[in-house]
Amino acid sequence: MEEINSLQNARIKKWTLLHKKKYRDESGLFLIEGEHLIEEALKAGCVETILFDEACPFAFDNTVKVTAAIMKKLSANVSDVHLIAVCHQKTKTAEKPKRAVLLDGVQDPGNLGTIIRTAVSFGFDEVILSPDCADLYNEKTVRATQGALFHIPCARGDLSEAIAGLKQQGFAVHATALDSSVPLQQLEETEKMAFVFGNEGQGVTEKIQKESDSRVRIEMEGFESLNVAVAAGIVMYRFRR
Amino acid sequence: MEEINSLQNARIKKWTLLHKKKYRDESGLFLIEGEHLIEEALKAGCVETILFDEACPFAFDNTVKVTAAIMKKLSANVSDVHLIAVCHQKTKTAEKPKRAVLLDGVQDPGNLGTIIRTAVSFGFDEVILSPDCADLYNEKTVRATQGALFHIPCARGDLSEAIAGLKQQGFAVHATALDSSVPLQQLEETEKMAFVFGNEGQGVTEKIQKESDSRVRIEMEGFESLNVAVAAGIVMYRFRR
Repeated sequence: MEEINSLQNARIKKWTLLHKKKYRDESGLFLIEGEHLIEEALKAGCVETILFDEACPFAFDNTVKVTAAIMKKLSANVSDVHLIAVCHQKTKTAEKPKRAVLLDGVQDPGNLGTIIRTAVSFGFDEVILSPDCADLYNEKTVRATQGALFHIPCARGDLSEAIAGLKQQGFAVHATALDSSVPLQQLEETEKMAFVFGNEGQGVTEKIQKESDSRVRIEMEGFESLNVAVAAGIVMYRFRR
Repeated sequence: MEEINSLQNARIKKWTLLHKKKYRDESGLFLIEGEHLIEEALKAGCVETILFDEACPFAFDNTVKVTAAIMKKLSANVSDVHLIAVCHQKTKTAEKPKRAVLLDGVQDPGNLGTIIRTAVSFGFDEVILSPDCADLYNEKTVRATQGALFHIPCARGDLSEAIAGLKQQGFAVHATALDSSVPLQQLEETEKMAFVFGNEGQGVTEKIQKESDSRVRIEMEGFESLNVAVAAGIVMYRFRR
């Protein structure tokens, strides 16, 4: 077990940079906090280094004891954190996927993370993010996934290409929309289904709606306003596996 | 139209205190930001004063022009805000309610606000909060409701008493739980239904589960982890009006 006591240590400085998206992208690394998330990351084999300032509850080769001051510097939280892990951005591939979620410009890291968490709970096989979605490795996204992030392939890319690819694999692609659309209860289940959820303010872009096989609407009266993570939860529950 | 230019103005100082729960409780007032929320508050007749620094799009008797510096001081946001309203905490009463939501220790203002927003969209008649829930008038709660807060009676009180009262009115009260519970799909619809959702970490307390008529479970495999606002959305959609 290694020990680092100085805030000026080169590795500590390097890890601190991981709060910025730019350095996460360059290094392919990101930070997670707390026992629960680290447990999930260990199961998925994504952990590079575990840092702790009191005791480390995990039997893991690569642990580093650091000071409380270092912990504070590396943590994104205001309250005390005693366990942080440096993780690899490991990309999984979906094997024979039957349920996919596509996100078209979901801006809020909390919503993104919550949708990933729900997708895993309802047996979805993959999540595809448009380039303008929030960052998958943002601390708020990771926290909102509750570790689900480590259990589902998440890719970022052009949604039009993704939709074309899914259709070739036999998927029916359904975009969520408010108007001129099929009520969720009437949408028939097929073997391979993909659902597109959109930006918090604008919804799914017109282009992506047109490229989808159908537009599906969650039935409601009056106020007609749903958070995107709630809408995604309702649709994914209906077509869970 | 009145004009206030000094940060030291007594009314500005008083309104700034509304960022704190203590002063919101004492005064029965709270602040909201942005055109959309103010529009919803006006519909509900909850607005006391509208403050603006550029132009006020509303025909309202009580408006005050203030400086950009005052706006910044009164706003909870980092980005520019040009419209703020001081609102009354108006308590509505549900008339002949048939669908109620009870929240047992929901801590996160975002979750609380999202649940209220969903409740209104699915035709629920009232929301009852346990004393340890997040504050209804916290800026994050209000923002997450997207204005739904102004369209549904929300009360805070002892949940055991609320459950007893609902049962007397002929409600079936269902607590959400993971174990020894009825799958959501099998729960039969009755005329009057109430649902209890619990704390983000602990769920519904054992006491409240016992006082409910049944425990209902959202069917899932494997990961089994849902955000409380997503769970509430799925249940409320199933029994929407």
